Amino acid sequence: MNQNSLLSRINSPRDLDQLTDAELKRLCAEIRTCIIQTVSKTGGHLASNLGVVELTVALHRAFESPKDKIVWDVGHQCYTHKLLTGRREQFSTLRQENGISGFPRPYESEHDSFMAGHSTNSISAACGIARAELLKGSNRSVIAVIGDGAFTGGMAYEALNNAAGLHNLIVILNYNEMSISKTVGSFARYLANLRSEPTYLKTKSSLENILDHTPVVGKGLKKVLSSSKKGIKNMLYHSNFFTDLGFAYLGPVDGHNLEELSRAMNWAKNADKPALIQVFTTKGKGYSKAEQNPGAYHGVSNFDIEQGNPDFIEEDSFSTAFGKELERIGRMDKKVCAVTAAMKYGTGLQYFSSTCRDRFFDVGIAEEHAVTFCSGLACNGMRPVFAVYSTFLQRGYDQIIHDAAISRNHVVLAVDRAGIVGNDGETHQGIFDAAYLSHIPGITVYSPADYEETRIFLKKALYEIDGVVAVRYPRGSEPKLPEFPEKNTDYQWIGEGDCLIVTYGRISADAIQAAQKLGEVCPTAVLKLNRISPLPEEAVKKASQYQRIFFFEEGIRLGGIGEHFLNALNQYGFQGSYTLTAIDHFIPQASVESSLKQLHLDRDGMIKTIVEQINEV
Amino acid sequence: MNQNSLLSRINSPRDLDQLTDAELKRLCAEIRTCIIQTVSKTGGHLASNLGVVELTVALHRAFESPKDKIVWDVGHQCYTHKLLTGRREQFSTLRQENGISGFPRPYESEHDSFMAGHSTNSISAACGIARAELLKGSNRSVIAVIGDGAFTGGMAYEALNNAAGLHNLIVILNYNEMSISKTVGSFARYLANLRSEPTYLKTKSSLENILDHTPVVGKGLKKVLSSSKKGIKNMLYHSNFFTDLGFAYLGPVDGHNLEELSRAMNWAKNADKPALIQVFTTKGKGYSKAEQNPGAYHGVSNFDIEQGNPDFIEEDSFSTAFGKELERIGRMDKKVCAVTAAMKYGTGLQYFSSTCRDRFFDVGIAEEHAVTFCSGLACNGMRPVFAVYSTFLQRGYDQIIHDAAISRNHVVLAVDRAGIVGNDGETHQGIFDAAYLSHIPGITVYSPADYEETRIFLKKALYEIDGVVAVRYPRGSEPKLPEFPEKNTDYQWIGEGDCLIVTYGRISADAIQAAQKLGEVCPTAVLKLNRISPLPEEAVKKASQYQRIFFFEEGIRLGGIGEHFLNALNQYGFQGSYTLTAIDHFIPQASVESSLKQLHLDRDGMIKTIVEQINEV
Repeated sequence: MNQNSLLSRINSPRDLDQLTDAELKRLCAEIRTCIIQTVSKTGGHLASNLGVVELTVALHRAFESPKDKIVWDVGHQCYTHKLLTGRREQFSTLRQENGISGFPRPYESEHDSFMAGHSTNSISAACGIARAELLKGSNRSVIAVIGDGAFTGGMAYEALNNAAGLHNLIVILNYNEMSISKTVGSFARYLANLRSEPTYLKTKSSLENILDHTPVVGKGLKKVLSSSKKGIKNMLYHSNFFTDLGFAYLGPVDGHNLEELSRAMNWAKNADKPALIQVFTTKGKGYSKAEQNPGAYHGVSNFDIEQGNPDFIEEDSFSTAFGKELERIGRMDKKVCAVTAAMKYGTGLQYFSSTCRDRFFDVGIAEEHAVTFCSGLACNGMRPVFAVYSTFLQRGYDQIIHDAAISRNHVVLAVDRAGIVGNDGETHQGIFDAAYLSHIPGITVYSPADYEETRIFLKKALYEIDGVVAVRYPRGSEPKLPEFPEKNTDYQWIGEGDCLIVTYGRISADAIQAAQKLGEVCPTAVLKLNRISPLPEEAVKKASQYQRIFFFEEGIRLGGIGEHFLNALNQYGFQGSYTLTAIDHFIPQASVESSLKQLHLDRDGMIKTIVEQINEV
Repeated sequence: MNQNSLLSRINSPRDLDQLTDAELKRLCAEIRTCIIQTVSKTGGHLASNLGVVELTVALHRAFESPKDKIVWDVGHQCYTHKLLTGRREQFSTLRQENGISGFPRPYESEHDSFMAGHSTNSISAACGIARAELLKGSNRSVIAVIGDGAFTGGMAYEALNNAAGLHNLIVILNYNEMSISKTVGSFARYLANLRSEPTYLKTKSSLENILDHTPVVGKGLKKVLSSSKKGIKNMLYHSNFFTDLGFAYLGPVDGHNLEELSRAMNWAKNADKPALIQVFTTKGKGYSKAEQNPGAYHGVSNFDIEQGNPDFIEEDSFSTAFGKELERIGRMDKKVCAVTAAMKYGTGLQYFSSTCRDRFFDVGIAEEHAVTFCSGLACNGMRPVFAVYSTFLQRGYDQIIHDAAISRNHVVLAVDRAGIVGNDGETHQGIFDAAYLSHIPGITVYSPADYEETRIFLKKALYEIDGVVAVRYPRGSEPKLPEFPEKNTDYQWIGEGDCLIVTYGRISADAIQAAQKLGEVCPTAVLKLNRISPLPEEAVKKASQYQRIFFFEEGIRLGGIGEHFLNALNQYGFQGSYTLTAIDHFIPQASVESSLKQLHLDRDGMIKTIVEQINEV
C-alpha cells in the first residue's frame, strides 16, 4: 500500500473524522483498489464487498464503533469494515491460516460485535444487543446491515416482528437485487418496487396540493381520509411492510452517495422507534467486470485483475459430479425435483435447472422451508433432492425430524461441503451432519469418497431406499482411490492385517495409503464405510474380530459415527482396543489439507496415531 | 352419542352434501357438544378446536378430501376434521394409547395429508403438495389452515415468499388473536388492523364516488392516481402484505358463518393465483367458560364441564419449580432476562413475567430468533435464559451452534419436556436434546432429577459456568429420590455392588429402586449423572473399574449420553460388559409411565434387563 495513501492513515474509525468530503471519496477509491488487489491474491468475497464501501465509510462516520455496534449479516461485506477498524496491516492475510477471517469474528476485534457466516441472524442479534443497551440505561445505536438476499430467510421476519420498543435499533437493508445469485421470491419483487417510491412521494404532494386548493371537495375528501379506522390518510403517507411492522422507514437511499447516506443515518439515529433504511447499491461497484457479472464475482478464488477470470464454478468437484448426474437422472425421470436454498451454482444444480426448469426450485436462503417443501413434494408422489451445504442444513434439523423422518417421506438430502471446508472457518465447517443425521430414526446416510461413488449412491438414494436418505460429500475434488471390484456396496474391505482402520468419506484414500505404508511394521486392513448410518451389521461383526481398531472421522467426535461404531462393536462382544480420532472443537480457517493434518486425519497423522498406540502397549 | 344425531350419519365428508343449511348448523352444535364432552374426559386442545367447527365443515363442503388436501398447522384444531373423516367412533380414544392422535397423522387417515405438531410448517408443506399436483397435471386444491399465532414463525414467511405460480394453493389464516397465549409481535397487530378493512372499503367507494362526481378536480386526481409507477390507485384498492407477495386476498370473513365461508372458499378455488382468506374466529366458541378464558382452555387435562376447572398450570411440576426459582433470581439480579417462544405458562415463566416485566420477552413461535436474541443479550452483558420445550428447541439447533456456541456466549437453555412427554406423541417427544446439545463443543448440559436439583443447576448455569449451558428436565412432577448429603455435584454414587447402573434425569429414581431390589440377587451400585455433558471424568474413571455396567437413557440411543459414556470408558481401558438401554425409534402417544415401561426404562424394566443379562452369561 502507498504510504501516502489516505487509507494508510486510518487506524481506527475515528480517523475518518479528519477527512474532508473529497478525501472520503478518494478513500473509497483506495479501499476498492485494496480489496480488488488483495482478493485477487487470497480469494474471497469480491462483488458484495465492493458494493458497500461508501455504506461502510458512512456508517463509521455516523456511528462510534464499538460503543455503537454494527452487526453484519452473513459477513460477505465486512472487508471495508475490517480495513477501517485497525486490521489494514493484516488484510493481506485474509482467509489464510492464522490470518484475519473473511467474516466478522468477535474474537478478532471489538468492532466485530457478532459472529457472522450463516445468513439472516443479524436483526435477531441486533435486537438482543440493542435491548441490552436499553436495559443498561444506554441509548447507543445498534445497526444491523442485511442484504435483500438474506431477507428471504424467515429469521429476518421473526426479528422484525420483535423489534417494537427498540428505538436504538437500525436496520440497513442493502438492496442489490441479489445475494449470491439473483434473489428469488415475491418479497424481493416487493422490495424492488419500493424503489419507485420517490415518484409516489411526489404524487402524494400533488394530491395533497390539490386537496388543499379545492375547498369543498377537499374538505369532504379530507374527512373521508380521516374517517376510516386504519385511515387512507396513513396509506397516502409512507406506508409499507416495514412501517406496518412499526418501523420508521426511509428509502430509497443511494448507497454510493456519502452525503445521502450520512443524512439517512442521522435521521435513523434520531428516530423514536426502530428504523429501517433501504439502501440501493451496485454489487461489484468500481470493478467493471464484477459489476457486469456480480454472480461470477461473488465468491472467487485468486484471479487476474486485468483478465478477470474468477474460477467460481469448479468443474472438478463433487458438486459438479453430483449436479451432472442429477441432471442426467432428471431428464429421464420426470418425478425428480431439485431444490436449493440460494446455492444453485455452489451445489452444481445449474445443469438440472437448465434442462428440467419446471422441476427446479430455488427457495432463497430458507432451509427450513426447503426441507418441508421437499417433504410435501415427496408425500405427493415426487422424488425431491435438496442440495445443500452441510453447515446450512443445520437450519433444517427440526424439519428433517418432524416433517420428513417421522412420516418416512422419501426426501433425498444431497449434503455438500460435508467435512472440513477450509478458509471460511468455524461457521462453515461441515462437521456436524454425520452426527445430527445419524441419530434420527429411519434416516440412511451414505458417504461416498469419490465422484463415481457419489453418482452410485445418489441413484441408490433415489431408487432403492425409502424414507429420508442423505448422500454427503466434501468440498473440492476427489482423492485417488484404488479400483474396487464392486463400488455399489455399503462397505469395502481393503487389505488384511492385525490392525484395522475404519473410516469413511474422502479420508478413506489417506487410510488406504496409511495401511499400505504401515504394511511392513504392522499389517493393517481398512474397512471403508459407504453407508455410515445405519451401520452395516456384517461389517461391524467382522470388525469385532480384530484386536486393534482405529477409527478416523472427519467429523465431530461426540455423537459421530466413530462412537456409534464402538457401541455396535460392543454388541458383538468386542474386547480389543479402540482408538477414535475425530473432531472435538470448532475448526478455525486454514486450508483443508492443513486442517486435516492438524487433526491427524491425513495419511501421516493416521500412521503416527497407529504407531504410537502400538508402541505404547 | 345420540343415534339420531346428525353427526352419527357422517361417515365421510361427502355425507355433508346431503344436509340442508339448517342441518349443517345443528351439526356444528352437535360437534361442539361431542368435543366438549370428549375432551372433558380425555384432555386435549379445547378452545382452538371449538373455534374452527364451522370453518372445518365449510372446508369439507367446498373441497373434496382427500383429493383436495387440507394441511392443518400445529394441529390444535383438527378434532372436527377427525369427526368428519371417519374417526367419529374412535374419537373417545383421543390421545390415549393405541387411540387416535390429537394431531393430524398421515398414517392414521388418508384425510390427514401432512404431519402436524410443530408450528408453522403448513404453508411450506402445502406448497410442496400443491406443486406436485401441478406437476402431475392436476388442478386439485391444497389448503393450509394456519392461525395468527403460527404466523409469528419465520417459516410462514419463507413459504409465502415461494408461493408464486401455485394457483391451486389456498391459505386460510385463522385469526383469533391468540395461539396458546395472546399472540405477540407487530405482525399480529397488523393482521388485527386488516379487520378494519370493510370501513376502508366503504371509504374507497366514497372516495371514488366523490372523484367521479367532481369533473375537473376528479380528472386531475385520477390522472395523479394513475401516474405513479406503483400507483396510489393500487393502494386505494385492496393492497396489503399478502397482495404485495402476490396472493389474492379476501378478508375479513366471519369464521362462524357457514354461508360466508362457503362463498370465500369458492372464490379462492377459482382464483388464478395463490389465495389467502383471513377468517376471524372466536376461540372457545360455544362454551362460554372457554370463550371468556381461551388461554386457560387451550390445552386442558380432564375437567368438569359444569364447574369448568381446567388444570392448565400444573403447580406441582418441574416447570413451576424452575419458573419460581428464576423469578426469585430475577428479582435480585437485574441482568437476568427470560425468553419464551409463546410458552409463558407452559414453561413456568408467568412468575418472572409478572415481577420482572421489562426483562421478560415472549418472541412468538420463533425459536430461531429466540436463541440468537439471547446470544445478542448475552454478548452485551445480560444473563438470558431461554425456557423452551426440548422438541421445539430443535428449531434453534443451528443458532445454538452458530450464534451461541462458537462465540461462547453465555446463554442458558432451560429445556423443559425433556424425555418422554406422553399423549402428544411422536412430534412432541423430547428425545433428541441430550444428543444434539452434547455434540456441540463447549456446551455444558445438566439433567436434574428433582425440583431441588433443578434450582441448584439453574443457579450453577447462571453463575458458575461460561458459554452455553443447558438445564434439562422432564414434563410433570418430580420422582422421589433419596436424601443425598450433597446435591450440588456433577454426579452421585448410590450403594455398592458388582454391577453398576449409570443413568440420569428422572429415571434415576427408578434406577435407585431397581438397585435396592436387586440387592440380594446382585449387589448393584448406581451412578447418577447430573452433568451429562461433558461427562465428569472422575466418575467415568471410577465406573471403568466395574465389570458390568448398565446404562439406562430416556433419550435417543445413537449419539446419546450412553454412547458417549462407553467411549469415555474405553479411554480408561474398560473391558467389562456394557449394556445400553435407550430409545431407537419415534415414540407414539401413550402415558409417560406406559412408554417408559415399554422401553424398559422403569424400575421393573431395569431389573429385568439386568437379571436377563446376568443369567445369559
